Amino acid sequence: MTISMHSASAPVFGRMLGNLLAWLDKAEAHATARKFDGANYLGLRLAPDMLPFTRQIQIASDAAKGCMARLAGQELPSWEDNEASVADLRARIQKTIDYVRNFEPAQIDGSEGREITIPRRSGEPLKLTGEAFLKHYALPNFFFHMTTAYALLRHAGVDLGKADYLGR
Amino acid sequence: MTISMHSASAPVFGRMLGNLLAWLDKAEAHATARKFDGANYLGLRLAPDMLPFTRQIQIASDAAKGCMARLAGQELPSWEDNEASVADLRARIQKTIDYVRNFEPAQIDGSEGREITIPRRSGEPLKLTGEAFLKHYALPNFFFHMTTAYALLRHAGVDLGKADYLGR
Repeated sequence: MTISMHSASAPVFGRMLGNLLAWLDKAEAHATARKFDGANYLGLRLAPDMLPFTRQIQIASDAAKGCMARLAGQELPSWEDNEASVADLRARIQKTIDYVRNFEPAQIDGSEGREITIPRRSGEPLKLTGEAFLKHYALPNFFFHMTTAYALLRHAGVDLGKADYLGR
Repeated sequence: MTISMHSASAPVFGRMLGNLLAWLDKAEAHATARKFDGANYLGLRLAPDMLPFTRQIQIASDAAKGCMARLAGQELPSWEDNEASVADLRARIQKTIDYVRNFEPAQIDGSEGREITIPRRSGEPLKLTGEAFLKHYALPNFFFHMTTAYALLRHAGVDLGKADYLGR
């Protein structure tokens, strides 16, 4: 038995993004209880030179949709990064879940050896096999932005724990 | 083609833990330049009710070694959590890398359907297949603690960027 490229990607993104929607439920409940505008979360940063909450979610979304598109050999979907409220972020997350779940296994399976080219701001583009791209680039990057979003909410006092992160 | 349970686990843990050693190089250089004791990093927390830097690294180590042992059907190695310096943390990380890399693919491959039982503080133990355990529990948990360790160093002013996180 082996695991497939589809099973190692789409369900991981889909489940974690579903967890993120539940973190936002708790974030909004916290904002309501403390009587502040949930939009205050959007600009939070862990350090002044780190990206704010909204960007963490947009980039997690991009990591998930970009991974699926690249593995399937499709054009990368370009979505406007214009979310300005928790409701907008929810819509972006749900749109990402729907996009990811819409891929059939047959579109993704067999992409282990596909050459993936990632443009870089400086120097040569990065070239990876589909398998290396998924394991060493797309998933680590996705989890980076998910965990940073989680940390920002924890830092803001939202009642989250590891069970919320993992989603059980 | 498909990816194997071994290729989806050991190289991911090994590479990221190697990246973590490089983050510690930068952390120590930062401490030297700013003339503070590198051990000051060990107690840093992102929030007063989050675990400190040392625990983030110990738990990332436990996530990696526990995943490999569980998938191989071996007893979980129990290591003392007694690290008290950056040098101790380095040794713990290197020991984890060596442990993870020591598994042969044949010990891990085919563990997709193995029943994995995870004790929980409250309630029934969690039962998962090897594949679900790796994708939805072990890897997310590992990346959680790696990213939190990274965020603590970033927060402390260490000159790290996404390239250090991903390791290229």
